[in-house]
Amino acid sequence: MVKRSVKFKLTIAYDGTNYSGWQLQKIGLGVQQRVEEALAKIFPSVQRIHSSSRTDTGVHALGMVAHVEIARSEFKMAPSKLSLAINAHLPADIRVMSAVRCAEKFHARFDATGKQYRYVIWNHFAMNPLLQNRAWHVGLPLDVKAMRAAAKFFVGRHDFKSLAGTRSYEMETTVRTLTRCDIRRSGATLTVIIEGDGFLYKMCRGIAGTLVQVGQGKIGADEIPKILATKDRRVAGMTAPAHGLVLWKVFYGGKPRGRRDAAEGGKSNSTFSHASG
Amino acid sequence: MVKRSVKFKLTIAYDGTNYSGWQLQKIGLGVQQRVEEALAKIFPSVQRIHSSSRTDTGVHALGMVAHVEIARSEFKMAPSKLSLAINAHLPADIRVMSAVRCAEKFHARFDATGKQYRYVIWNHFAMNPLLQNRAWHVGLPLDVKAMRAAAKFFVGRHDFKSLAGTRSYEMETTVRTLTRCDIRRSGATLTVIIEGDGFLYKMCRGIAGTLVQVGQGKIGADEIPKILATKDRRVAGMTAPAHGLVLWKVFYGGKPRGRRDAAEGGKSNSTFSHASG
Repeated sequence: MVKRSVKFKLTIAYDGTNYSGWQLQKIGLGVQQRVEEALAKIFPSVQRIHSSSRTDTGVHALGMVAHVEIARSEFKMAPSKLSLAINAHLPADIRVMSAVRCAEKFHARFDATGKQYRYVIWNHFAMNPLLQNRAWHVGLPLDVKAMRAAAKFFVGRHDFKSLAGTRSYEMETTVRTLTRCDIRRSGATLTVIIEGDGFLYKMCRGIAGTLVQVGQGKIGADEIPKILATKDRRVAGMTAPAHGLVLWKVFYGGKPRGRRDAAEGGKSNSTFSHASG
Repeated sequence: MVKRSVKFKLTIAYDGTNYSGWQLQKIGLGVQQRVEEALAKIFPSVQRIHSSSRTDTGVHALGMVAHVEIARSEFKMAPSKLSLAINAHLPADIRVMSAVRCAEKFHARFDATGKQYRYVIWNHFAMNPLLQNRAWHVGLPLDVKAMRAAAKFFVGRHDFKSLAGTRSYEMETTVRTLTRCDIRRSGATLTVIIEGDGFLYKMCRGIAGTLVQVGQGKIGADEIPKILATKDRRVAGMTAPAHGLVLWKVFYGGKPRGRRDAAEGGKSNSTFSHASG
């Protein structure tokens, strides 16, 4: 039997400044909607795309992944032209960076084995005008050594309940495994690179906000294990603003799928596992 | 005798997207005007600031330098608060990054011994939405090895007439010394770092455009010496668009002041020596 549709894995980049996040929330325009509209202009039967992740209002992405099924009867172009065709119908602040044929069983969310987020901080008394809407402006000097010491405590398998938004409290498990939490410094720019098997709602911004408060001397680096153990959002630092965060990359296959392969994993919590940022 | 004014060296950053360059040209708003207006709100007697450089419409800066003289009778704040005070009167796309007392004889333009520009290229078929107005989108793959080979030929003391805008033809000399012309690659981002004792009008953009055409195979890397020798703008590559260029840094003292210290130097051509980009 001939398959009636072809499936593509799309990698999507966007400047989140003018959108109410990836997925349509209560009000406003979501990036997802714009991509679906662009696809529907070329392939009228396309209605939904399925993404690896959600992002909040103002959060950016360079490597959001989504899959789409296109009716074979409608798909008449060379597959290599697909991303150019979609981009022709998108505003300049959203771009499909790649579109590749994928297996029929590929699922952008369920097959994701890990993600990398980057949080950018501009640490100088005056904001860099070229990083407006791209970085969090922290005016007073940060103790980067202390921040690095604190960041190490986040790596590994932990219950991240105290770092995430309260929406995560309804979830079956708030345990996640971080494989990386580094801080790169280049002049006044600090980039927190956070990689893990899954992220709770606002978890990256909770980590970035807590690290900054460590850098300001408001929280001791050695308090992080205690903060994690408390499992109470009120004990950790602030939630960093959305506009410093970028969904950098989504991993498939190559990276260990810690949480979901492990005992408490399974589809039951994957509904929320992509409600990240 | 007590000096009646205090002099400050300002380092200014701006997103050039919404300005008609640094200095007011025929129409539109210049960044300089905005800075002068902000200063005049705090110190009514300030009318003019004097800058190291000019930049064209759309060109950005992280390290534009200007000096300003402020009447001592008007200057009542702690000097350390000056940049914060000016920034309070500036739009978010212009920021004073530092303001330091300087010697009475300091001149932002005449004392500059060198400048560094950076030209950013995004080399991928789809533009990066986070680099809109920040990088030149070059869609087809570039041969970076050939570009690096070509870049080496620009380093040293040359007549750059064939790389600069025709406005430079009126100048006494079009000889300049480049101390650096490197290409950094990070993923799809190429950054051309150009450092020299002075720049002709549109010279950086001429170099960047020529290097891209070398990367596209339209110009051979080994043709650069011939292009320089011809001293004819028509033989070099295109002028790269303004929005990829950033005036990164202006040097004082530490770097050799090749051209102006040398035989053909002098104030006669310094009127144009800062009309760069």
